[in-house]
Amino acid sequence: MSKAYEELQPYLEKAMALQTAMVLFEWDDETLAPKEAGAYTSKVIGTLSEEYLEKITCDEVKRLIAECKEDKTLSEVEAAIVREVADELEKLECIPPKEYREFAQLSAESTRIWAEARKNKDFEAFAPTLQKVIDYQKKFASYRAKDGQKLYDVMLDTYEKDFNMEALDEFFRQLKDAIVPLLKEIMKHGKKIDDSFLTGDYPVEKQEEIAKYLAEYVGFDFDKGVLAVSAHPFTTNLHNHDVRITTAYNEHVDDSIFSVIHEAGHGIYELGIRDELTQTMVGQGASMGMHESQSRFFENIIGRNRAFWVPVYGKLQELFPEQLGDIDLDTFIDAINKVQPSLIRTQADELTYSLHVMIRYEIEKMLMEENLEVEKLPDVWADKYEEYLGVRPKDVSEGVLQDIHWSQGSFGYFPSYALGSAFGAQLYARMKKEMDFEGLLEEGKIDVIREYLKDHIHQFGKLKTSREILKDVTGEDFSPKYYIEYLTEKYRKIYEL
Amino acid sequence: MSKAYEELQPYLEKAMALQTAMVLFEWDDETLAPKEAGAYTSKVIGTLSEEYLEKITCDEVKRLIAECKEDKTLSEVEAAIVREVADELEKLECIPPKEYREFAQLSAESTRIWAEARKNKDFEAFAPTLQKVIDYQKKFASYRAKDGQKLYDVMLDTYEKDFNMEALDEFFRQLKDAIVPLLKEIMKHGKKIDDSFLTGDYPVEKQEEIAKYLAEYVGFDFDKGVLAVSAHPFTTNLHNHDVRITTAYNEHVDDSIFSVIHEAGHGIYELGIRDELTQTMVGQGASMGMHESQSRFFENIIGRNRAFWVPVYGKLQELFPEQLGDIDLDTFIDAINKVQPSLIRTQADELTYSLHVMIRYEIEKMLMEENLEVEKLPDVWADKYEEYLGVRPKDVSEGVLQDIHWSQGSFGYFPSYALGSAFGAQLYARMKKEMDFEGLLEEGKIDVIREYLKDHIHQFGKLKTSREILKDVTGEDFSPKYYIEYLTEKYRKIYEL
Repeated sequence: MSKAYEELQPYLEKAMALQTAMVLFEWDDETLAPKEAGAYTSKVIGTLSEEYLEKITCDEVKRLIAECKEDKTLSEVEAAIVREVADELEKLECIPPKEYREFAQLSAESTRIWAEARKNKDFEAFAPTLQKVIDYQKKFASYRAKDGQKLYDVMLDTYEKDFNMEALDEFFRQLKDAIVPLLKEIMKHGKKIDDSFLTGDYPVEKQEEIAKYLAEYVGFDFDKGVLAVSAHPFTTNLHNHDVRITTAYNEHVDDSIFSVIHEAGHGIYELGIRDELTQTMVGQGASMGMHESQSRFFENIIGRNRAFWVPVYGKLQELFPEQLGDIDLDTFIDAINKVQPSLIRTQADELTYSLHVMIRYEIEKMLMEENLEVEKLPDVWADKYEEYLGVRPKDVSEGVLQDIHWSQGSFGYFPSYALGSAFGAQLYARMKKEMDFEGLLEEGKIDVIREYLKDHIHQFGKLKTSREILKDVTGEDFSPKYYIEYLTEKYRKIYEL
Repeated sequence: MSKAYEELQPYLEKAMALQTAMVLFEWDDETLAPKEAGAYTSKVIGTLSEEYLEKITCDEVKRLIAECKEDKTLSEVEAAIVREVADELEKLECIPPKEYREFAQLSAESTRIWAEARKNKDFEAFAPTLQKVIDYQKKFASYRAKDGQKLYDVMLDTYEKDFNMEALDEFFRQLKDAIVPLLKEIMKHGKKIDDSFLTGDYPVEKQEEIAKYLAEYVGFDFDKGVLAVSAHPFTTNLHNHDVRITTAYNEHVDDSIFSVIHEAGHGIYELGIRDELTQTMVGQGASMGMHESQSRFFENIIGRNRAFWVPVYGKLQELFPEQLGDIDLDTFIDAINKVQPSLIRTQADELTYSLHVMIRYEIEKMLMEENLEVEKLPDVWADKYEEYLGVRPKDVSEGVLQDIHWSQGSFGYFPSYALGSAFGAQLYARMKKEMDFEGLLEEGKIDVIREYLKDHIHQFGKLKTSREILKDVTGEDFSPKYYIEYLTEKYRKIYEL
């Protein structure tokens, strides 16, 4: 280990400890913290985040990073860590510490104001806060923009490198061109699917039981993990021995089933990261897109696959004999793959999902590049849903207030959901060449699939970018065609077109 | 605000934020964290605690504290904060940062090793770790000892100022002289009390319901608080708007009932601290003894009081009609006050409780002042139980491994349980002169009692010491006589002696 690299370690250790603490506060806030704690706790979080900033951007770290960058003796992992710290440093040092801290505090408050506004279906109650969040994000992006780079491109880069507006416009255009006509055809000529039995009196305790069972079945290790309840399902991790997922239970049993498999996918990614990488700057998933590729791979390519349910469906019937006792496997599989243009992204079917994402992408562009006024958001939102999906929200809780992301300042994040689905389909196409994918699922040998993903993706953390991973696994650069082929083939078959 | 005091604030804010984070990690570890997280998470905690140490002991804080100590213009609160920081600084700066950090990490691991050893009834598995903890605590105490001060006196001072071995030897002597003969008389001549109905098939969900009901009934505010489950009940707080209590459920329904009222007492103390004090160095209870005075006040003086149950017992009967439907109030009150020498401190009756504490006090003195070897602990423990209580543990899980405290390095803490009971009795004697205490309880007006405690004790945080609080409330210095009178009168009456 070089001297400069060694001297850097205590700073990084402290920065990571502070970050881990902030993760725990966020987890706690979403799952358990009492109602009135927020205002006080957000001050604590603000202080910790300022401290984190100071650790990464102090003169000593700057000097050491500069030295390390010149050091050719560093190992691959060491060099990757230096690269990540340099990136983070560059991102952070252009933000005045005072603003950074103010935003950390604002963002903690903002999610609570959003949650309250959503509950009360009251956009006005959230609008001023959202405006502040947007102003901060624009300001931060402007600090970071290089050579006339557009603000929204700066934001996109945070979540997925090498996918700017130009690339995403083209990606979404191809998707739209394929999905919109297919959707119309399905609605007009596809066979009729009944999924009404998925909604009803599904007792929460039994939903909890199947949620835990499925998470474990797909490989989420409860010795290193936790499953809890929160308003909006999410995954977080302290390190690769403490990964936490949440879900929410309602009268639609498929909501909790697939959100748990989805979050378990995120969780399995984090659990699979190498020990030597965890709690370092490269100890997380490669990117948001690659993360979503894994969660959506588990949710859809595995979880909505007929083969997956062959050994498992009986267990579900056993738990819910009244609701599912008379429903045969094929009827169930059709139901969980039913296409139905709808209002809520997280409950959307696999086919229309990308259209939900595209709407958010287009609106974010308008907010960041065309100064769309916040007050107009509910109408713009509703108009786009009407245009692309033919449905219109009756209030903001099922419209513009449905997602937590903007309240946290996560602009540029949404596209990674669609990108992730496309990454996943490209990986799936390759894996089918190397293994009897559906055969393994039917035999309950999901561990073979999981180990493949761990070996080829999870273990590397941030050592590789998404594009590098795709290239190494599939031998090709990213291409949306696999996703389009996957959707087209799957849904033409289900709808007998 | 003076300039030096103002300059001090950012340091204190950061130190408090780090401390709050460590509290959250501890809470999480005890209630929810997955099994395998510990080893990794304890590194994070080690780093945070080192960072806390650096904040409090840095040269700038030393300089500012020295200036503030000379500043006569500080307000009462400001001066108290400066005094607390100066104390903490003095405590911390004598400990080499490396050792401080090592101990924080050891203590996090140690509680897990203890829990495992207790489960397996395997003292040997814990002994080497306990030895390390003791060695650290002795070393730390030796760094802090002034003018030939004894090590155990240094430790005692951490939890309760002005109560050294000399004072405690006298306190326990008076208790022993009063309690041991009374206990013998009760066992020989007292009426027979049946409490067998408190043990049985008490379903956990119903125990949870009554636990939540009772916590709320005595005044624990769930908008600012959480109730969870942990192996060993405890209370912790992030600030006065986020206070958390735990309990554990077993077949003895009185265990969870009284542990919840006990922890709610701690919690109500923390919730009652003034807003201007929370998240400062004086924003906690005055001392461990004063804290225990409140928890044991709620548990015993309120919770085991016949008057308390007059409006509440019906609710309990409703929840458990099979177990308690035929048990009348007086039979229930006798049962929850039954005296029975036993092995487990947390389940001990109010009368013998102090003897459990005294045994720990005597053993701690032996460990710290007479170099008692750790291997001998199980036998010494068993012998003392046999001597004072006439019972002998059949294994270490109901013997020397029953308490978490030593694994955390909390030597000198136990006496505060007995002191707290004595503080509470002295307060009770005074309150009875000012209000119709039992009348209020019978009418369910527990808020009048709680407000009195808040006004006279809780709100002040650490602005006053225990002795000052007692003096201000009762007009007298601390005296064990009220506790002895209270116990004697109460138990002679119950046992019809």
